[in-house]
Amino acid sequence: MFLSKITITLRKSILDPQGKAVEHAIGTMNIGNIRDVRMGKYIELKIDAADEAAARTMTEQVCTKLLANPIMEDFHFEVEKL
Amino acid sequence: MFLSKITITLRKSILDPQGKAVEHAIGTMNIGNIRDVRMGKYIELKIDAADEAAARTMTEQVCTKLLANPIMEDFHFEVEKL
Repeated sequence: MFLSKITITLRKSILDPQGKAVEHAIGTMNIGNIRDVRMGKYIELKIDAADEAAARTMTEQVCTKLLANPIMEDFHFEVEKL
Repeated sequence: MFLSKITITLRKSILDPQGKAVEHAIGTMNIGNIRDVRMGKYIELKIDAADEAAARTMTEQVCTKLLANPIMEDFHFEVEKL
């Protein structure tokens, strides 16, 4: 059993209005100088696979076929053994 | 300048219907045995701070005061120097 931890982020060239809104909210809170806020998605899933290589391949398939939009988003993931 | 990478996840005890929907979609795709899909948020932000300890404190403030719902969500973060 493996645990995949996937992060999906908007590509740098894509505007992120949600991030801008959060940045503006932080600016009103007197916390300090924070900028370039980018919002993304985080997904965890458990995989029954024979080995880590198989788990990585399955995670990549899930990302490319379902979770990430290849035009607008990048994804990264880590796979750990449970 | 520091980069904070924040993940916000629903607590284990909270149902995650979006994760269940993704799990069901994966089930129809013939990728293999994947379960316990949990959807969360991923946020990156840049911080101007004197040192890493200050950057960590600011990140924690942003999480507790703005980004995470303390009743339903947990957050984790890493801070790296840019």
